[in-house]
Amino acid sequence: MARILAFAGSTREGSYNRKLIRIAASGAREACAEVHLVELADYPMPIMNEDLEAGQGIPPKALEFKQLMLENDGLLISAPEYNSSITPLLKNVLDWASRSETSEEIPLSAFRGMTAVVMSASPGSLGGLRGLVVLRMMLGNLGVTVLPDTRSISSADKAFQADGSLASSKDQKAVTRLGRILAETLERLGRSNDREDR
Amino acid sequence: MARILAFAGSTREGSYNRKLIRIAASGAREACAEVHLVELADYPMPIMNEDLEAGQGIPPKALEFKQLMLENDGLLISAPEYNSSITPLLKNVLDWASRSETSEEIPLSAFRGMTAVVMSASPGSLGGLRGLVVLRMMLGNLGVTVLPDTRSISSADKAFQADGSLASSKDQKAVTRLGRILAETLERLGRSNDREDR
Amino acid sequence: MARILAFAGSTREGSYNRKLIRIAASGAREACAEVHLVELADYPMPIMNEDLEAGQGIPPKALEFKQLMLENDGLLISAPEYNSSITPLLKNVLDWASRSETSEEIPLSAFRGMTAVVMSASPGSLGGLRGLVVLRMMLGNLGVTVLPDTRSISSADKAFQADGSLASSKDQKAVTRLGRILAETLERLGRSNDREDR
Amino acid sequence: MARILAFAGSTREGSYNRKLIRIAASGAREACAEVHLVELADYPMPIMNEDLEAGQGIPPKALEFKQLMLENDGLLISAPEYNSSITPLLKNVLDWASRSETSEEIPLSAFRGMTAVVMSASPGSLGGLRGLVVLRMMLGNLGVTVLPDTRSISSADKAFQADGSLASSKDQKAVTRLGRILAETLERLGRSNDREDR
Repeated sequence: MARILAFAGSTREGSYNRKLIRIAASGAREACAEVHLVELADYPMPIMNEDLEAGQGIPPKALEFKQLMLENDGLLISAPEYNSSITPLLKNVLDWASRSETSEEIPLSAFRGMTAVVMSASPGSLGGLRGLVVLRMMLGNLGVTVLPDTRSISSADKAFQADGSLASSKDQKAVTRLGRILAETLERLGRSNDREDR
Repeated sequence: MARILAFAGSTREGSYNRKLIRIAASGAREACAEVHLVELADYPMPIMNEDLEAGQGIPPKALEFKQLMLENDGLLISAPEYNSSITPLLKNVLDWASRSETSEEIPLSAFRGMTAVVMSASPGSLGGLRGLVVLRMMLGNLGVTVLPDTRSISSADKAFQADGSLASSKDQKAVTRLGRILAETLERLGRSNDREDR
Repeated sequence: MARILAFAGSTREGSYNRKLIRIAASGAREACAEVHLVELADYPMPIMNEDLEAGQGIPPKALEFKQLMLENDGLLISAPEYNSSITPLLKNVLDWASRSETSEEIPLSAFRGMTAVVMSASPGSLGGLRGLVVLRMMLGNLGVTVLPDTRSISSADKAFQADGSLASSKDQKAVTRLGRILAETLERLGRSNDREDR
Repeated sequence: MARILAFAGSTREGSYNRKLIRIAASGAREACAEVHLVELADYPMPIMNEDLEAGQGIPPKALEFKQLMLENDGLLISAPEYNSSITPLLKNVLDWASRSETSEEIPLSAFRGMTAVVMSASPGSLGGLRGLVVLRMMLGNLGVTVLPDTRSISSADKAFQADGSLASSKDQKAVTRLGRILAETLERLGRSNDREDR
């Protein structure tokens, strides 16, 4: 069964991306994936710093998050855009997860062989699209296959209904489909050698 | 069986990327893919221009190339870097292939659902890496899944032996593996719905 | 006096970018710059190919265009977006202009020390914004200072009036300002050492 | 007199980028700029979060840093690369500096009209070059003119001498020149209207 880790790159209470990821996650569940939807607020970590890491090791919450990544084969990320790039919060979490605990560990084991779908929501007219350019490049460089399927919800402050769904049924369907596409692609791929070999 | 279209983004006689693509193509063949290795020199087309297209339609050689894309599920491209981006030749071929012949045609049918692996070679110290950033972004936006596996061969003017193989056995193995990875991923994926539905 | 070369990356008869560049060019002229507004249709060149160059040299029209670049200190470019990048036409012109005629020539002399403002127009909702990402990176790597001021006109098929101006007075003002900003920045900079030393 | 804020995107004790920025800063001082070389370690701030900001305002150290930006016209940044992008530390500092204290404040006042030069150092063979792609895009989108002059020092673990200078005199000269170029460009530009008008 496809195992997917899903989260938004925001901890804001009213975050549009936290709403969006729930829709995509439900799409993945409808396609029979096992989805681990987590909140980055539950994984507080200090800003990545190699001196800190050398002195105290990878922080416990960063190790927990990395473990989650190792246990899943798919990534579903909804990424807010700050200043045409991703949030420092998201960058920090991904950077900590990229660290090796021992010198024997295969580098980037948490990322290699993963398959991802990314999306964004923003009050602006571009919907956070420019941040995804940076996120896609970064994930690709970490060994993740990022599927081309994506969605950026513009005017996000007006896009969601009280029940959490998107007012535009076209958008709702498209975002639900993102989760399904990831689940189905993981099913088709089976477990990759890269992830088996870790 | 995995069907792969392979080509270099150069027509230069002594092109390093034309050498490189042959190595990757042989890796794909070893993994039992059916590889169609073509030369862009055999597909001359005018610089893309919508007035030209409106007047005379898509040029015959561009249609032939688009047909090749439609008949394959994988793309193996070795892309020279010109001024930190891809060659106008490669951009032109991909742009023509992105055009629809009729208004009924599904947009981007030649690209949607394809899986690609890209690589580069250059005499410089970066090996053409910056051009791949642009190529990856573009293919992703066209609906192609670009695998994270890649290789950029630096000092390409000294990298190849007389028999066409790479002097560095590590590089030779890595580029051969690129073809194999694409072939194996296509096998695992089976034919995608996107491409079946075209 | 500020000398500016202005052109659109399209030769299409009804091109939105050809309309847009005229507005920006008039803004530069209002700020007393000497603007050379040219049409790429007047500079036909074969697709860049190093074998062709080695055999016949840089084509005459490419040399003429390069000469225009050498005679100006500012670049004003309106760039259509094809498949989330720039047109092969524009890439080709810039690549030819980047070639050296002799081995004594300072590399990239046509670009180094130039200051540029870029913009785009497109019928889509992003206005060609993604192509500018690629163009800005490329120009920067060629030694051009690209000013942050920019504008991407979305829904370009409905944006222009019969007299060539933009229906939105806010857009019209913003694009006129782009030309003025470039002219004023060039005045403030004076001729750069890079360009004097060529 | 040109006023420049200089810092590295790292707080690591043995940071190569902290060494590199000192060289560039000295180049700017030789060209008679007033250089404010600061350590991000002296500006600790929580990870940017809009709920935190709404509840407690911009943190004191973020306001101090923003004030530094407002008092200078040039930015000299040496940016470590983490996973082909910039550090979460640097992203966080820039994101906090982009926030407005009041609704009357001109958006992005700390950035608009600034001129920047960026550089990087890394033990790897690319010298942190890929992180600069992201940094340049981001600064440009914030209204900063990023000069094309740049340098990425590869094999940074072996590049510096005990006295802090670069072992390669060519590199040492090039990085010193980066500071000088920024100082001279600021002199030529004078104070920009954008920054006067704030």
